[in-house]
Amino acid sequence: GLANRGAPRWRILQRDWSIRVSVLHRVTPPDSGYAAMSPKITGELLRQLRQAMRNCKYFSEPIQAYIVPSGDAHQSEYIAPCDCRREFICGFNGSAGTAIVTEQHAAMWTDGRYFLQASQQMDNNWTLMKMGLKETPSQEDWLISILPENSKVGVDPWIIAADQWKNMSKALTGAGHSLVAVQDNLIDAVWMERPERPSTQLRALGLDYTGMTWQDKITVLRAKMTERKITWFVATALDEIAWLFNLRGADIEYNPVFFAYAIVGMNTIRLFVDLKRLYDPALRNHLQLDSPSKPELSIHTFPYESVYTELQAICAALSPKDKVWICDKASCALTQVIPKAHRTPIPYTPLCLAKAVKNATEIQGMKMAHIKDAVALCELFAWLEKEIPKGTVTEISAADKAEELRSQQRDFVGLSFPTISSVGPNGAIIHYRPLPETNRTLSMNEVYLIDSGAQYVDGTTDVTRTVHFGTPSAFEKECFTYVLKGHIAVSAAVFPNGTKGHLLDSFARAALWDSGLDYLHGTGHGVGCFLNVHEGPCGISYKTFADEPLEAGMIVSDEPGYYEDGSFGIRIENVVLVIPTKPKYNYRNRGSLTFEPLTLVPIQVKMMNTELLTQKERDWVNEYHRKCREVVGAELERQGRKDALEWLIRETQPIV
Amino acid sequence: GLANRGAPRWRILQRDWSIRVSVLHRVTPPDSGYAAMSPKITGELLRQLRQAMRNCKYFSEPIQAYIVPSGDAHQSEYIAPCDCRREFICGFNGSAGTAIVTEQHAAMWTDGRYFLQASQQMDNNWTLMKMGLKETPSQEDWLISILPENSKVGVDPWIIAADQWKNMSKALTGAGHSLVAVQDNLIDAVWMERPERPSTQLRALGLDYTGMTWQDKITVLRAKMTERKITWFVATALDEIAWLFNLRGADIEYNPVFFAYAIVGMNTIRLFVDLKRLYDPALRNHLQLDSPSKPELSIHTFPYESVYTELQAICAALSPKDKVWICDKASCALTQVIPKAHRTPIPYTPLCLAKAVKNATEIQGMKMAHIKDAVALCELFAWLEKEIPKGTVTEISAADKAEELRSQQRDFVGLSFPTISSVGPNGAIIHYRPLPETNRTLSMNEVYLIDSGAQYVDGTTDVTRTVHFGTPSAFEKECFTYVLKGHIAVSAAVFPNGTKGHLLDSFARAALWDSGLDYLHGTGHGVGCFLNVHEGPCGISYKTFADEPLEAGMIVSDEPGYYEDGSFGIRIENVVLVIPTKPKYNYRNRGSLTFEPLTLVPIQVKMMNTELLTQKERDWVNEYHRKCREVVGAELERQGRKDALEWLIRETQPIV
Repeated sequence: GLANRGAPRWRILQRDWSIRVSVLHRVTPPDSGYAAMSPKITGELLRQLRQAMRNCKYFSEPIQAYIVPSGDAHQSEYIAPCDCRREFICGFNGSAGTAIVTEQHAAMWTDGRYFLQASQQMDNNWTLMKMGLKETPSQEDWLISILPENSKVGVDPWIIAADQWKNMSKALTGAGHSLVAVQDNLIDAVWMERPERPSTQLRALGLDYTGMTWQDKITVLRAKMTERKITWFVATALDEIAWLFNLRGADIEYNPVFFAYAIVGMNTIRLFVDLKRLYDPALRNHLQLDSPSKPELSIHTFPYESVYTELQAICAALSPKDKVWICDKASCALTQVIPKAHRTPIPYTPLCLAKAVKNATEIQGMKMAHIKDAVALCELFAWLEKEIPKGTVTEISAADKAEELRSQQRDFVGLSFPTISSVGPNGAIIHYRPLPETNRTLSMNEVYLIDSGAQYVDGTTDVTRTVHFGTPSAFEKECFTYVLKGHIAVSAAVFPNGTKGHLLDSFARAALWDSGLDYLHGTGHGVGCFLNVHEGPCGISYKTFADEPLEAGMIVSDEPGYYEDGSFGIRIENVVLVIPTKPKYNYRNRGSLTFEPLTLVPIQVKMMNTELLTQKERDWVNEYHRKCREVVGAELERQGRKDALEWLIRETQPIV
Repeated sequence: GLANRGAPRWRILQRDWSIRVSVLHRVTPPDSGYAAMSPKITGELLRQLRQAMRNCKYFSEPIQAYIVPSGDAHQSEYIAPCDCRREFICGFNGSAGTAIVTEQHAAMWTDGRYFLQASQQMDNNWTLMKMGLKETPSQEDWLISILPENSKVGVDPWIIAADQWKNMSKALTGAGHSLVAVQDNLIDAVWMERPERPSTQLRALGLDYTGMTWQDKITVLRAKMTERKITWFVATALDEIAWLFNLRGADIEYNPVFFAYAIVGMNTIRLFVDLKRLYDPALRNHLQLDSPSKPELSIHTFPYESVYTELQAICAALSPKDKVWICDKASCALTQVIPKAHRTPIPYTPLCLAKAVKNATEIQGMKMAHIKDAVALCELFAWLEKEIPKGTVTEISAADKAEELRSQQRDFVGLSFPTISSVGPNGAIIHYRPLPETNRTLSMNEVYLIDSGAQYVDGTTDVTRTVHFGTPSAFEKECFTYVLKGHIAVSAAVFPNGTKGHLLDSFARAALWDSGLDYLHGTGHGVGCFLNVHEGPCGISYKTFADEPLEAGMIVSDEPGYYEDGSFGIRIENVVLVIPTKPKYNYRNRGSLTFEPLTLVPIQVKMMNTELLTQKERDWVNEYHRKCREVVGAELERQGRKDALEWLIRETQPIV
């Protein structure tokens, strides 16, 4: 469906690759069973859940508390409707939150972004636990304070990560309780009409899109395993599995992935997926299911659910020196199947890193996708200029128009995330998404911020532009110019090979800081190629995490911003490619890197106070606009989009 | 004694607050028992050590391996001669290295800086384990590969940190061995003529130097403890204890500290120190030992060695809810006295943070110290200009002259670290210290780098200047100018309250990166006030660590550099004070910070390619030089140092 209307169902974990990862929230569509902000009636549901907790059918003894985390079994950022269990039990549909139900209590922990929303969506059966406030106990402390001695706390081991399990278990054990794995999910047990797990049609991508056969990807993976003396690799992240097999699905909105697991050994490949999806002869051929070229490249397929027993069987046959790689964010259930002596947890997998470094074909595809995306946006802005004076364009209709224009481009699949289309004060709400009740009309008097992107078969886009259709104020221009200076400082940065992305974050802020301004989100996230718009292991953020150094072929976003509460929001986002560069010297032969913008949409000159720009910055703007005009102009011409071409030419006049 | 001659004995742990922490090595004085680079004969020593390992007098059973780490019982960066146990047993006197002796083997692990030196200083009894090479086993793996089943590996629990113990113990236990604490140090048992632990005279600092009584510091500490529900605090770092009690010693060269422990409860204060040191009535009065003002501010003194039994006694009387704070880098011995349920390890203590934020009196003292230090350096440079043409000044004599000039200043105590005085190619060796065999003559043809500092009763200094006494090459000037741009970028940076130092590191490198250059050390370290020249918890480095945000009153160094192997080294270092600043706006009322240089020594204009500087940078240089001239000029005039004043005035002419 169209973004902002109908059925968008997604959510976000705490990975925080980007501004959106941490700030957006899934909004229940207005046509769902209850109004967005009225509480869900949960008395009967809780009664049933507590009955299940006492029922020895699910666990050998009654359990005194049951934890319902947010998340699915694959560490997904966005989740499918069937995995929205925490929302189902308490009514709160924000992206972050954990519910815990005991015999007497039901409590839900969430952070400051959601205090109001959660308090409106949950009924009196629930206590809202406001994380970040001093008086709010942690989940562990709260459980310990209310549980009777020697209690059992249950959780579905498939949706709790191994490290979270460890921490919770330690705290509970220390207080005389125990954390127990309840294999059947108790929410599912009481969830009548729970949606089915999606099983959409799979799409095989040829070499012209992927640049590398899945067979070669397996060979490279095995070489990495050999290098580290690893005998088995368990893949649980959906985008990694999609990338590895050059397959795409549509199981989760905005993410072209499909529910699956994979286990790769040195001579065997096991793929766990709804087997019905593999009936298609073309797919069978792609995967060489019926006539593998070599025995070690033969894929053995198993039902999705059998990953547990298969992994058990593999682990039962391990030799003493065998080591199994699994991501440390994988589910507790799968992780614990692997005996500790054989388990080698890693912060991100070799697939995650290999996927991040795009090959020449993927880079070419990403460039093509961004040109098509720019065509759609040039059309949009030209259209907005004409329509806005009529007073008929709203945040929602502008977003719809953007989607419509994108859908006209070749190989369009869908949006890569729900469009943020925001006018004036709505732009200052970083996690804003227009709803019918907040929908504002675009005008000549307010700043308009649109952050949007699409999935094309050849690549994924993500672009933010901030524009004014009338006359921006001096302060708006000043802030925009600082944000632009930060954007350029990152985009034009030259840095040695081996530099981690977090070392570039302050470049994006220096101009804002100089004037006492800042923005409270990271500067960039990795972008997949016809895959998730947010991917690891790299990013540009003040928060340091286990990120790998940037290397040529990686693709990240560059999106500094400034948000003036109650007034306007500014963000300038390009997707940029890490490329080698040759400055004057080459210290210790390390080589240098810089960025090449893939996004080619003009940055509004009207919003700039060009006096605040240095000559270098002005040169950057002019060269960027020259390239937009040349590359996107040619495509607009080819597509016969005259209005947009005219707009592009006007918007890319050099500045002095 | 003078730096670079005689008895400097210091060493460095891996803390890496600064360039020097990671790169310097202690050099055996030429007048010691063996030439710096001839191996120590260790056969007999090893025989005695192995005998001790078998002797059940030291441990209830024979031990099969004995680990000798570098370090003392206080996590000190520099150590006293009596603590140089690893050097004693193997001969290698670099700053980093761990020796392990078994019945059959003796091996010593060190890193790439020391491969050559270690191979020259150790005899055939020792195997050099080159850390960082793929084929080199870890200490754990090596032990496991050679030990007979069920072996005991001994270590002195006082000189191994709690976390290191934990890792080693886990690895050994996993392989069927055990790590055991041998309370008597076995090196000491075979070390005839081991130097005594120093017990130098203590110096009490009055309010005019400290700005805060020790009583008030205790009160503030207790408030922090109350806030975190902590009942006891164990202080083990020597600079924290010196700071807390407003006392200084001279037990470790360059560091005005003294061997002691302290345990602070809510109503009691215990100080563990060689009691002879407290006979002085003035000291007794300072500490109010004989007539405490309030019972809870009465200090109970104990012998240094009794900290273990006293802490045991305290822990035996703990109530169930009592919590004890101890730094997670404290010794295993003391840490393990505290039962796990009561132990609250912290990455840095409240004293470490409190000490880092200087009060008005300390800031005033630091400013005074830096003015005196600048007087000495202006004199030095004026003198060098006259003497160098004669060809009689060497790296060592220049360093000696610097020390002599500093020693003429009021309240001079000693150097704050051994002077790095380096000419031409020696300047490119980051961890260089001039030795008679490397001593180079200063000339008109080579770049001279001097990194030096002193302890004054009112403050600690640390300054690096790079100068040319003839005509620098275009490349030398170009590199110097990039380093200067980096220095200015940090020094003039404006950043929000709450910013961590590591977020500023890239500012120091951007100009170098733009030209493909870089330097392989951090940008800055915390500086104590008449305390250690390197202190935590803050710094400016590309390596992220558990650093606290910068706040007004903190003092750090700003020292980017560039090193052209075999040719020259450049570093520009000022000590800078974090101060509040008020830019145009104040986003979310967070407030902004910037730096004020405390170091006031001209930066040589001759080395600058001013065309590469922006107008802002030229303004910064001119304003800095104006301040040097005004402030240091007045003091030079007061001291009647005409040559230096003339030099200062010439060197601070504005640039255009």
